Amino acid sequence: MRALVYHGPGKRAWEEVPDAEITDEGDAIVRVDATTICGTDLHILAGDLPEVRPGRILGHEAVGTVDEVGDGVHRLSPGDRVLVSCISGCGTCRFCREGRYGQCAEGGGWILGHRVNGTQAEYVRVPYADTSTYRIPDGASDEEILMLADILPTGYEVGVLAGGVRPGDVVAVVGAGPVGLSAIACARLFSPSHVVAIDLSDERLKKAMEFGADVAVNNATDDPVAVIRDLTRRIGADVAIEAVGAADTFELAVKLARPGGRIANIGVHGRPAILHLEEQWARDITITTGLVDASSTPTLMRLVTTGQLDAGRFVTHRFAMDDFEQAYDIFGDHASGALKVVLTRDGE
Amino acid sequence: MRALVYHGPGKRAWEEVPDAEITDEGDAIVRVDATTICGTDLHILAGDLPEVRPGRILGHEAVGTVDEVGDGVHRLSPGDRVLVSCISGCGTCRFCREGRYGQCAEGGGWILGHRVNGTQAEYVRVPYADTSTYRIPDGASDEEILMLADILPTGYEVGVLAGGVRPGDVVAVVGAGPVGLSAIACARLFSPSHVVAIDLSDERLKKAMEFGADVAVNNATDDPVAVIRDLTRRIGADVAIEAVGAADTFELAVKLARPGGRIANIGVHGRPAILHLEEQWARDITITTGLVDASSTPTLMRLVTTGQLDAGRFVTHRFAMDDFEQAYDIFGDHASGALKVVLTRDGE
Amino acid sequence: MRALVYHGPGKRAWEEVPDAEITDEGDAIVRVDATTICGTDLHILAGDLPEVRPGRILGHEAVGTVDEVGDGVHRLSPGDRVLVSCISGCGTCRFCREGRYGQCAEGGGWILGHRVNGTQAEYVRVPYADTSTYRIPDGASDEEILMLADILPTGYEVGVLAGGVRPGDVVAVVGAGPVGLSAIACARLFSPSHVVAIDLSDERLKKAMEFGADVAVNNATDDPVAVIRDLTRRIGADVAIEAVGAADTFELAVKLARPGGRIANIGVHGRPAILHLEEQWARDITITTGLVDASSTPTLMRLVTTGQLDAGRFVTHRFAMDDFEQAYDIFGDHASGALKVVLTRDGE
Amino acid sequence: MRALVYHGPGKRAWEEVPDAEITDEGDAIVRVDATTICGTDLHILAGDLPEVRPGRILGHEAVGTVDEVGDGVHRLSPGDRVLVSCISGCGTCRFCREGRYGQCAEGGGWILGHRVNGTQAEYVRVPYADTSTYRIPDGASDEEILMLADILPTGYEVGVLAGGVRPGDVVAVVGAGPVGLSAIACARLFSPSHVVAIDLSDERLKKAMEFGADVAVNNATDDPVAVIRDLTRRIGADVAIEAVGAADTFELAVKLARPGGRIANIGVHGRPAILHLEEQWARDITITTGLVDASSTPTLMRLVTTGQLDAGRFVTHRFAMDDFEQAYDIFGDHASGALKVVLTRDGE
Repeated sequence: MRALVYHGPGKRAWEEVPDAEITDEGDAIVRVDATTICGTDLHILAGDLPEVRPGRILGHEAVGTVDEVGDGVHRLSPGDRVLVSCISGCGTCRFCREGRYGQCAEGGGWILGHRVNGTQAEYVRVPYADTSTYRIPDGASDEEILMLADILPTGYEVGVLAGGVRPGDVVAVVGAGPVGLSAIACARLFSPSHVVAIDLSDERLKKAMEFGADVAVNNATDDPVAVIRDLTRRIGADVAIEAVGAADTFELAVKLARPGGRIANIGVHGRPAILHLEEQWARDITITTGLVDASSTPTLMRLVTTGQLDAGRFVTHRFAMDDFEQAYDIFGDHASGALKVVLTRDGE
Repeated sequence: MRALVYHGPGKRAWEEVPDAEITDEGDAIVRVDATTICGTDLHILAGDLPEVRPGRILGHEAVGTVDEVGDGVHRLSPGDRVLVSCISGCGTCRFCREGRYGQCAEGGGWILGHRVNGTQAEYVRVPYADTSTYRIPDGASDEEILMLADILPTGYEVGVLAGGVRPGDVVAVVGAGPVGLSAIACARLFSPSHVVAIDLSDERLKKAMEFGADVAVNNATDDPVAVIRDLTRRIGADVAIEAVGAADTFELAVKLARPGGRIANIGVHGRPAILHLEEQWARDITITTGLVDASSTPTLMRLVTTGQLDAGRFVTHRFAMDDFEQAYDIFGDHASGALKVVLTRDGE
Repeated sequence: MRALVYHGPGKRAWEEVPDAEITDEGDAIVRVDATTICGTDLHILAGDLPEVRPGRILGHEAVGTVDEVGDGVHRLSPGDRVLVSCISGCGTCRFCREGRYGQCAEGGGWILGHRVNGTQAEYVRVPYADTSTYRIPDGASDEEILMLADILPTGYEVGVLAGGVRPGDVVAVVGAGPVGLSAIACARLFSPSHVVAIDLSDERLKKAMEFGADVAVNNATDDPVAVIRDLTRRIGADVAIEAVGAADTFELAVKLARPGGRIANIGVHGRPAILHLEEQWARDITITTGLVDASSTPTLMRLVTTGQLDAGRFVTHRFAMDDFEQAYDIFGDHASGALKVVLTRDGE
Repeated sequence: MRALVYHGPGKRAWEEVPDAEITDEGDAIVRVDATTICGTDLHILAGDLPEVRPGRILGHEAVGTVDEVGDGVHRLSPGDRVLVSCISGCGTCRFCREGRYGQCAEGGGWILGHRVNGTQAEYVRVPYADTSTYRIPDGASDEEILMLADILPTGYEVGVLAGGVRPGDVVAVVGAGPVGLSAIACARLFSPSHVVAIDLSDERLKKAMEFGADVAVNNATDDPVAVIRDLTRRIGADVAIEAVGAADTFELAVKLARPGGRIANIGVHGRPAILHLEEQWARDITITTGLVDASSTPTLMRLVTTGQLDAGRFVTHRFAMDDFEQAYDIFGDHASGALKVVLTRDGE
């Protein structure tokens, strides 16, 4: 079969590799019908995640068709159309039993395209298949459901649910890249009174307005703290969501929150931030961090299939898998305006 | 009347002052039967809170007897025995309506002995008396109830409730001063499997064991991270409570928490801390800060009066009010072993 | 002044009465600019609430202008435009301090037009004015805000919040009268996948579809249990809301809920119902009852003023106060299609 | 091997049966070291559960040693000492993924000694072994841990957690049989101010006081409503737990609860009850029902092994398995005072 293989910093190739094979009775082999590229894949290529070793097939998002299942798999049969989630959960450890699949203590969590071979391939071995894939209802499109593999549950769980968004809230989202847009779209599910998008790029802010923000602040030129204060009678945002992964954006998010407010960090951070406890110790704030668990996947699938959540609009580019390297080029080029690129066997 | 007056950094005197008088129809004048000194009062004397101006009567904790009430007071009558809480709440602003009296937007919050004259006096004017005092049931002792004015609700609300302590949890409490001891005693109400006290002083750790800790770690000589890892099969504490108010103890508390764990900051901080997001972004942690609301006072009163919580053991020294300056000396002297000193009209 | 006075079962008149006057320092006198009639008022007229004595001015909903305030009122001044809520809360009792104003233990709760004179008058005395009225933001219309006096917080708090509606849920609402329609509209704030309206009247079901239901079941001809089973793969509704107040509709709501589901009763009941514990004891259901607290009023006001919630569409008829008796006739006539009738000084 | 076999209403025998064998790759065969009899087993023998067919080996509680595991079992190895829970969970269906193992939609839930052969045998086949057994820490006694198979998680989850017991609460427990005693002991974990036990038998009430109640009411002679009113200033109990399974005790529990209170039903009911909605519709009550999930087993195991919860005191009688029929006689005889009887291979 063919797959996108990481060959060390800066190097990747769509090439022939050995077929995916069942190695544990809980595995399934899934034929990949649609997959995509995540910002994290670019970080791997930049060499930022040294635990990913050369030779690894990348990718942790897919929609596909079950090809074969191990003896221990109960819920899947060959031919089933499934979502392969970015998170694999053993389903039996203490964390999985609480629904914290992202923290799986038995070798699960984020492993596809990271610690085991991933989904940017014609076939993928999915460990713990019963608790790491989701049957797709008839009528749902591959493209929409593919957005449930990572980006939508990340914005929903780590941003919106952890942030406790409620009807009538003022929600600030710092960063309007794909994950920030996901947080904006998912925040809308709870009918906030305002969603304020904050970013340095006017193009991204324009996207943010399309995804559900109703105030856009370019913090190169405007002061988001002042905007939020004006909007909230000087009190602050009910919820501030960090969707960048930098110290200054985190520190901004903390500053935006009202007394009793919540700050939900989604961003992947490489460096520490300053927490101004001398300002915050008495303000009743709550800060959360988190890795997606994908525990909300069934809920999000209902929301997408009933039209409550428009997942398709994340997709800006489509490619055939044989053009995988070009897809990486486009996705990695800020000027392309790419949000999510979709790769299918035939490019549609 | 006589009162303990702040005269600028380092200066205070028990002296004659004008009588407390009603200035708003929601006020009550309370005759102070018992009061105490808080660590915060020492900070004021050190000049750390410049908003406290010379001439201010200090103190924000009292048990007393209602002497006079304004026309707008419904729930109190002269002769009623009441607890005067450290937190005054208007009862009508958005924060008070959520029970967040500490964040009162109408001039309440911590104001006694801070922005208005306080309780270290023969009489005190209590603003918003209906929502800032608590009737004391017959049979409860002044000394026990006095511990509900600040230290017990602080440990309970900002430490234990914000930390979400649950039966079977491993709870780490960093700092075994009076507030840390309160957190330890209050954590016990939820039957954790272990309460681990961490402090630099063996004397304090001995106290911690008396108040309900079952593991004591002197972090001058032992590594609390290692102790917690051993106790939890390398997972970490379910809840870590910071009760010091320093950057390094906060950073230690964050390090002690398990994936999915909670860090509740009680400490009053004068400087920022480092938040190692590069280690924590994916660990599902929750960090809370807070000022006490005293919303738990009725609950704590039931717990004390029914013997579920032993409040009396905080009291180590007793004085007559006329010896107020000596009481400050003793309370400020680390070698004295003082936890809470109680001042009454006659010294008992 | 003139007011709508109850004169015993079946008798009411719009007539001259003594002016409303301040009797407690916490009172405000509000000039009524818009008021409405509630189904409960019809029950009073039917003699179903014997605690309402002849001579009582009816009505518990109003938008108006503050005319005069008692000495103990802090948050209002003459000229302020306010919503007068159906619930009066003392703000200081144990229930009010938890936000349970409907259960106020100090003479509050539902008292207007019930135990004290009400809002169907040119002026009304509002007890506990600081905690029983809500300032109206500029730009909001009287008519929309008037819907926040009772019907919208009732559907939101007692139906949707108590029922714990979540994104993706299937929500069944039994009864599509005004309160059921409020529950339907408010459920939509949480993006359920389906809202199923159940009623015996096709006209009401048509209204239900306009207010946000997406499935309508006339249970005179169709079996709602079967419809819900088909929609949920035989599992049942996540939330079932009873908005009628009869034994059989309550029993139906219980039957509709899935294992682990919630049944929120809003209906006012005059008779007991059967709870089939022999069927339900092992099904993990939660049943709630409740009186509105109006604690959500500020939230709902933000939702209405920012366009998240369309309050105006409840209003079907408008009258001048001098036509109050005609308004009662129309509101009481099922054939009129009246949902909410609005009475103003000049009929607009 | 030998086992206790049900042969139709009134008939059971300890007799030779075919050996337990693995039939699915997720099964484990466990050698039973200790088992017990549940009140439900008596109901089966009375013919009340017709779905239990003659030939069935009874019993759903055991402590044992893993003898053999299927290929799909990851977390157990032969020789492991395990608790076999009354609830089997597939771990992968929507209910199991929420921790609602009792509602398992894939053939789990309460199946042992009910739909498949049970634990009153020398060996037992445990389906879904990874998610239906719990490793036992060294040093814990078989007898104590055996109490975690059913009675303790039932009282804890269905009574105390569903009832939301909080520090300072007044908790009423109706019924002081084994399950009621479990609810009483588990309620104590949350430091209520009072636990009021209500029963018709003075002997049971005496037991209740030993297990943690501090008020005992014999409702043959005293009025529990009056007792609770006196204890709570006429307000009512914060939590009322039904632990009998009869209409009148359920109706009593509802009557005992305060406005805003919770009623948690644990009892197994064979007939409907009356719900007095005409009294309760406006009182903000919450009623819950439930089957145990055993999701709290790891928590309870920590509580028992660290001495927070005394599980051993439930055990009143001990037998060798060869005396199983005598054990049934004693357990079924009300005059015996038996709470839990323990059967081991050698009778200790």
